[in-house]
Amino acid sequence: MRVVITGGGGFLGRKLAQRILKDNSIAGADGQPRSVEQLVLFDQVAPPAEETADPRVEVVTGDIGDAETVRAVVTPGTDSVFHLASVVSAGAEADFDLGYQVNLDGMRHVLEAARALGTTPKVMFASSIAVYGGALPETVEDDTPVTPETSYGAQKTIGEYLLTDYTRKGYVDGRAMRLPTIVVRPGKPNLAASGFASGIVREPLNGIDFACPVRPESRMAIMSPRTVIDCFMHLHALDAQALGHWRGLLLSGFSVSMAETVDALKAVAGDRALGAISFEIDDQVQAIVDGWPRTSYSARAEALGFPRDRDIADIIRAYIEDELD
Amino acid sequence: MRVVITGGGGFLGRKLAQRILKDNSIAGADGQPRSVEQLVLFDQVAPPAEETADPRVEVVTGDIGDAETVRAVVTPGTDSVFHLASVVSAGAEADFDLGYQVNLDGMRHVLEAARALGTTPKVMFASSIAVYGGALPETVEDDTPVTPETSYGAQKTIGEYLLTDYTRKGYVDGRAMRLPTIVVRPGKPNLAASGFASGIVREPLNGIDFACPVRPESRMAIMSPRTVIDCFMHLHALDAQALGHWRGLLLSGFSVSMAETVDALKAVAGDRALGAISFEIDDQVQAIVDGWPRTSYSARAEALGFPRDRDIADIIRAYIEDELD
Repeated sequence: MRVVITGGGGFLGRKLAQRILKDNSIAGADGQPRSVEQLVLFDQVAPPAEETADPRVEVVTGDIGDAETVRAVVTPGTDSVFHLASVVSAGAEADFDLGYQVNLDGMRHVLEAARALGTTPKVMFASSIAVYGGALPETVEDDTPVTPETSYGAQKTIGEYLLTDYTRKGYVDGRAMRLPTIVVRPGKPNLAASGFASGIVREPLNGIDFACPVRPESRMAIMSPRTVIDCFMHLHALDAQALGHWRGLLLSGFSVSMAETVDALKAVAGDRALGAISFEIDDQVQAIVDGWPRTSYSARAEALGFPRDRDIADIIRAYIEDELD
Repeated sequence: MRVVITGGGGFLGRKLAQRILKDNSIAGADGQPRSVEQLVLFDQVAPPAEETADPRVEVVTGDIGDAETVRAVVTPGTDSVFHLASVVSAGAEADFDLGYQVNLDGMRHVLEAARALGTTPKVMFASSIAVYGGALPETVEDDTPVTPETSYGAQKTIGEYLLTDYTRKGYVDGRAMRLPTIVVRPGKPNLAASGFASGIVREPLNGIDFACPVRPESRMAIMSPRTVIDCFMHLHALDAQALGHWRGLLLSGFSVSMAETVDALKAVAGDRALGAISFEIDDQVQAIVDGWPRTSYSARAEALGFPRDRDIADIIRAYIEDELD
């Protein structure tokens, strides 16, 4: 199998790559496990060299917004593309043109390159619960109308429609999943409005004081990195018939409040010294978060056997194991 | 006011142009009527010369899939663009690349050209109930999920998301309406699966025998050309605040069966000689039509005061008046 990961230098792309290399196996077109001969990590910036020493890995740097570049990555013999490359929410809001170039044109380039192969490769797409917006129910479900209120959300939505149409035509076997907010993200804080949900765990564990910008009872739909990767592998292995026509799949998030997160962190931390946690409400962030659903639940994903998180303490323990120990 | 109609050489574009010229007035940004100084009809093929003799009319022929061409049409001073140009359903299904080039790239070119003006012009977009697909309720309503099963439907859906995002950013004042099947279409039969719904009236009135490919009790959501044009003018004049965030508006169609249509035609025809009407069921067409909603009803459009059709006999009388007498 030749597998391509766009956004292969990013947080999720790197985790996905490590998982595929470790398994040394991924589902073929028939769902049966096949060995992985080549894993292409495509991104603007290469992953750390120590992660790409494996002889199966090929690193390609370039711009997903350039059609020719993408064609040179999704070459004949490619069985599966995991399309994770994107400009994040705040970035697409700040730079409208860049957002459309990467998140819409980039998607079309991937689909066109895959179609040109003539072999109906699998195209896996990281969509987002940012496709929901406006007046939302507490829990978004499979039939919640998709009315994004950010360019990022609009671009992810459009990507799902394109993916489904290319799939209907038999050009690709497209599979998209709408990811909840990922917690705990490692690394430096970023500008995403949801960043605090990871920061409230990560920073205190790093011994750094953290001021949470939303009220303790604020509640959101999250998913752990481990579960996201499990979901990608599960979606990739599913029988196409089971997915049916519509290829944009909501995932069930885990609903957690900031207060519950802090309690779990303290319980899990044991004798680790934690930075102090305070609540300093930023009205703007609070308003954004109040506009988000409290959780997501997909009966379709449940029926298809997707894994989900069920315990914030487990999520924090996994973070410590994967990123700190 | 400078008004541009893309698809200005097509059936609806020409009707819209005649209406605007006759009114010699269209709502400005503040909703108040303004005189029309220039009306640009853009299409691949020019409308008949006798329709474009008015000194306010400028005819431009060219390809909507070319960004530069569109920029040369949507020039500074443009107040409103009616974006009607598109490859029809069967065409977009037969030629995948052409469909995306005209229906998606063309839409983006219009939005980009309008955005470049820096004056938030109105962009009116002809969407379609083809955005619905799959297992549908008898009546599609405002909250019916949008899961198109044609490329044309996918492209119209994507157009609505783009229009709404450009509107949210303040680049354009976008307004889309989802048109039901238009009956009675004048002119030659086309390849659209819905063509029979017009042909069953038009051909017998032309003295030509007509074989209807679906059962007499087959029922669909239609709208007359007059009502479509009235809806465009109504939507154009509406206060932007009343429209809110989501700019894709379903219209209420009129539900009619083929048997009802034939009865009304015979009653309205009076002493006109009619071609004979028979029913010769084409299983393929029947299956397509059975997959369509029986009608559409939009509480939102009703609340906003949109006109609708209520009588197939009136529709046929209007067709005779407008096209035959």
